[in-house]
Amino acid sequence: MSPIKHLDRALEQALKSHESDKGPALLSKAIRHAVFPGGARIRPQLTLAVAHACGNDDPQLSMASAIAIEMIHCASLVHDDLPCFDNADMRRGQTSVHKEYGERLAVLTGDALIVMAYETIATASRRSSQRLAPIIRTISQGVGAPFGIIAGQSWECEPQAALSEYQRAKTGALFAAATASGAQAAGADADTWKSLGEWLGEAYQVADDIRDVLGDAQFLGKPAGQDQEHHRPSSAKELGLNGAVEHFDLLVGKAIGSIPNCYGDKALKKLVAFEAERLLPSSWFERGERHVAIATQRQVA
Amino acid sequence: MSPIKHLDRALEQALKSHESDKGPALLSKAIRHAVFPGGARIRPQLTLAVAHACGNDDPQLSMASAIAIEMIHCASLVHDDLPCFDNADMRRGQTSVHKEYGERLAVLTGDALIVMAYETIATASRRSSQRLAPIIRTISQGVGAPFGIIAGQSWECEPQAALSEYQRAKTGALFAAATASGAQAAGADADTWKSLGEWLGEAYQVADDIRDVLGDAQFLGKPAGQDQEHHRPSSAKELGLNGAVEHFDLLVGKAIGSIPNCYGDKALKKLVAFEAERLLPSSWFERGERHVAIATQRQVA
Repeated sequence: MSPIKHLDRALEQALKSHESDKGPALLSKAIRHAVFPGGARIRPQLTLAVAHACGNDDPQLSMASAIAIEMIHCASLVHDDLPCFDNADMRRGQTSVHKEYGERLAVLTGDALIVMAYETIATASRRSSQRLAPIIRTISQGVGAPFGIIAGQSWECEPQAALSEYQRAKTGALFAAATASGAQAAGADADTWKSLGEWLGEAYQVADDIRDVLGDAQFLGKPAGQDQEHHRPSSAKELGLNGAVEHFDLLVGKAIGSIPNCYGDKALKKLVAFEAERLLPSSWFERGERHVAIATQRQVA
Repeated sequence: MSPIKHLDRALEQALKSHESDKGPALLSKAIRHAVFPGGARIRPQLTLAVAHACGNDDPQLSMASAIAIEMIHCASLVHDDLPCFDNADMRRGQTSVHKEYGERLAVLTGDALIVMAYETIATASRRSSQRLAPIIRTISQGVGAPFGIIAGQSWECEPQAALSEYQRAKTGALFAAATASGAQAAGADADTWKSLGEWLGEAYQVADDIRDVLGDAQFLGKPAGQDQEHHRPSSAKELGLNGAVEHFDLLVGKAIGSIPNCYGDKALKKLVAFEAERLLPSSWFERGERHVAIATQRQVA
């Protein structure tokens, strides 16, 4: 079974355990709409990949950490799509939650998914109870104030925001939580694995900026041109398109370079290179412009 | 120092540890606005009172559980006040968060407070790590789907809702989490203490309905008449004003009756009776109508 199918099965089980004939039916439906169908599930795949690289001695806990990260990611998408933020009608190729179920249920769906994320990890921590607190702290730091994705999103409400602070918080923070919590779920040190997530998260945000400019709505699963419309900081705007692509390649190279020697390091480097190619296919660009990415791919092969 | 001052000091410390010069300043301010000044802080007081009644052998953990409950309560108020729900301009006698900082920061403030709640408990669990998972599960069940306060709020979006299901989820669930987590933080059994929270939560909701009809905006700290305006289920509407007051007295009596024999049972019964009197002062009603309340107060004295 592919990692995505494993993840989707675990998400399905978690959702099911939070549904009841005696509970509000529309809330359950809206939560399902927010989680399925998924996107690339890159964050939870990273959690699982890092846990695997560290020996993965408690697969129940690493899977719970992975889907908790995904639940929180889905929650952030639902809230980001709200009329007061992006006012997006579409997400992952279907109607956004608030468009389908109304604004009230969209707010509540995001809230419920955050709560479900924590409950899911707690429930799975029976075998390794001493790992629970560090995982919760890692994830909370990647999500909450002052440096998590919620802080990242709120930089858009500040009169001034530095691009790197904004990107690090808006995307990098949850990627760092994804890699670090994968290590912690396997009893390994979090700090060694944070920078992989940070570099990847920044790369992911840069790719998103580039795609937003290129107008790749099919990939984004949401309308393109949003950054400009919402006057958001964007590396494509700040560095120019070519500069942004070069920056992306540099970040991917740093991500791969940060992976420590361990049991599963080769597989992990391959996953990162594969994901980078999926984000910004080489075929989109003239040869030569992407020398950094080519160098890192060669290094992996 | 009074329990409220203790709680406020712990909340202040938790907020401070989530602020940074390098983080978004407006988010920090909005979070502060949501938490201070507080209301009656009845839920976290209950957590502390139950922990105390159970021996309170880890005061750091019981305090963290208490303020986590309060943070989540504050988050729910911020989201409930949003334009898509109550569209309330005022809360706890000051402007609501979205009125002061805009809708986007209000959504993010609620999200950040939920995350902060979990992180706070995890950080305080060092001495009793095996208690962390049960506390997180208890609180999550009181907050999330399918029976927590988020589910309670979403009953308002369903075509049909049973009054008791609605009230149990909307208010009772977090009260039950408050009492049960207080017991768990002291290493005691949660189930023995859940019904106290459930009865009190239902009583609190009934009192809120009555006050909404009586128009006690000063106490509510928000506009009165909201239930009727938003076509919400209300016990004052369903049972009539006198019937609702009788129901309130019955619930308070059941709450007091549910307190098990333990080290601090007398003090706890007094706290409940005191809180009931604060919610619906006897002086508001003709003598005789409140025979149940008087009986329970006599029982306590």
